[in-house]
Amino acid sequence: MAEHLSQSELDYPFKLLEYFNGFRVSKVIFSACELGVFDLLLKSQEALSARHVASELGTSVDGMERLLDALVGIEILEVETTDGTALYSSTDVANLYLAKGSAKSLHDMIIYQSQTIYPLWNNLMHAVREGKNQNEKTFGLSSDEVFQAIYRSEEEMLKFMGLMNSSWTLDGHDIVTAFNLSGFQTIVDLGGCTGALAREMAKAYPSSSVVVFDLPDVVEAAQKHFCQESDSVVFQSGDFFSGEIPPADLYVLARIIHDWPEEKCLVLLKKIYDICKPGGGVLLVEAMLFENKRGPVMAQIFSLNMLVQTEGRERPPSDYTHMFNKTGFHNVQVCRTGKSYDAILAIR
Amino acid sequence: MAEHLSQSELDYPFKLLEYFNGFRVSKVIFSACELGVFDLLLKSQEALSARHVASELGTSVDGMERLLDALVGIEILEVETTDGTALYSSTDVANLYLAKGSAKSLHDMIIYQSQTIYPLWNNLMHAVREGKNQNEKTFGLSSDEVFQAIYRSEEEMLKFMGLMNSSWTLDGHDIVTAFNLSGFQTIVDLGGCTGALAREMAKAYPSSSVVVFDLPDVVEAAQKHFCQESDSVVFQSGDFFSGEIPPADLYVLARIIHDWPEEKCLVLLKKIYDICKPGGGVLLVEAMLFENKRGPVMAQIFSLNMLVQTEGRERPPSDYTHMFNKTGFHNVQVCRTGKSYDAILAIR
Repeated sequence: MAEHLSQSELDYPFKLLEYFNGFRVSKVIFSACELGVFDLLLKSQEALSARHVASELGTSVDGMERLLDALVGIEILEVETTDGTALYSSTDVANLYLAKGSAKSLHDMIIYQSQTIYPLWNNLMHAVREGKNQNEKTFGLSSDEVFQAIYRSEEEMLKFMGLMNSSWTLDGHDIVTAFNLSGFQTIVDLGGCTGALAREMAKAYPSSSVVVFDLPDVVEAAQKHFCQESDSVVFQSGDFFSGEIPPADLYVLARIIHDWPEEKCLVLLKKIYDICKPGGGVLLVEAMLFENKRGPVMAQIFSLNMLVQTEGRERPPSDYTHMFNKTGFHNVQVCRTGKSYDAILAIR
Repeated sequence: MAEHLSQSELDYPFKLLEYFNGFRVSKVIFSACELGVFDLLLKSQEALSARHVASELGTSVDGMERLLDALVGIEILEVETTDGTALYSSTDVANLYLAKGSAKSLHDMIIYQSQTIYPLWNNLMHAVREGKNQNEKTFGLSSDEVFQAIYRSEEEMLKFMGLMNSSWTLDGHDIVTAFNLSGFQTIVDLGGCTGALAREMAKAYPSSSVVVFDLPDVVEAAQKHFCQESDSVVFQSGDFFSGEIPPADLYVLARIIHDWPEEKCLVLLKKIYDICKPGGGVLLVEAMLFENKRGPVMAQIFSLNMLVQTEGRERPPSDYTHMFNKTGFHNVQVCRTGKSYDAILAIR
């Protein structure tokens, strides 16, 4: 593929220009989402003019028209011209993933990416230079307290939780069925946030009981904003670094290990090993790098994201196996889902 | 194509996630460029380790390693592992377009996009809402004086000039040969900036004399930073809105019209018409929209860029024809180059 890119690009760098344009395409979708364009078009029974959309959403007509046209260009909306007026309508993809109400909505992921991650990445160069996160340069927050930065206000905490929630909407089912986990009676999702992945667990393994374990403020917000009536999971408060971890047959660590440097990960895994019975296990969920350093691009980019925002990184399978072995776990299996997140199961 | 995107994306939105990731891919390339990665790899006779690159460029090893890996993932660099050490080398594409010294370097375009355009686009939502540029929200500058914002310091002026300069490196030849302009003896490039497009003109039409006309500060900076020894073009200072325009057979307006609202464009075109002899002409160079509002994506995105940064927009051919007709020009021809910028020729 590298050869392919090189050859065709030498005459005219179309792909390179597309990469340069990437931030603008991201922001086109993000801004439309923030303004409510996809929600309005989903609700509407008919195609709407730019003037109509602008009036409903309280924006300029000119700006909205350009935004809608760009969304047509990237095939996220459709347009037909009737009596000289361009009428815009949504696509199945936008209705399913970009509108707020849909069961598969990525709306909350988009809000977090647009408002928190995009500004952080403006300082990527500094992150690479300094080798540390850019919470200070971007938001004036200490670089040393990652989750104090991420949870710096209730609003930011809710946005972050929305991000986690909507990403499990996409990958949750593949993750929980990557291995047959039906043998585990009690499952505790450490740092389980809104419970979205835990609910996928409970759905796939109805005879298991699933507990979401997270910081008190997170549990409170999860119960207030992200819970259904008769929830299939139970919430429990605590701090898995400084406090006690509840007993369980299987511990889930989904996008937890990638937040921290190895020494901190080893402390956590050792702590789990010590209370884990023989036959019990740990399921890690992360975007796994290839050993040969050639991809996947998504995991490589996520690893830079960890640099910009946290103290962690994405890792290849051997790093996880190494950490597991070092803390006593020996039976380690890796499953790539082909989506954004992969699964690694270790048994004590 | 819309159908294609919709159908395959419904199962799993790979393309949509790629769009969400766009800003990060842009910043990966931009940051590598800002740090000098491509220059170092071009100069080096051999593949280099992340440690070596980091040491030469004064960055963290960890951050540099992740950046290099992501560049491998998007096929802009290559990697081979020798004795357990990953060694990175450049590709022809990176050497040609991303290294600073190359004749086709897009380095200056990248710097401007990374440092000025990326932050402006963080406020796209506000631009759409308000229908005006975001110089105030982004940089604390007045929204009403577009070029006072763009030229707010010598450093910013030089960065902007670098942007213009490097984009004509790409599209200049196609633009100047879109029409046979050899019949025009004197050519004046109004707002010709560094003279990059004018030099392409002089190369293609060696018997014509080519003048670059721009604001005094711009001409001074162009002559100081962007001129060769025996230049093929002549510079002349002035203000095409408030001052006199020099006589010529052909006037070039390359990415000028797109900065301004129609009324201001009409004033300028009328002014040119009034001093233009019969048989004389105007060559507009812009990224032209399709009449049907479906693309090209690049022009649609550029039009939003004009919203975020200026008072103008990109337009379909009919808008240019309309403006030409309104100011007296009648023979209007349009040529799409298939690249980023197109050409429109009008004869008095």
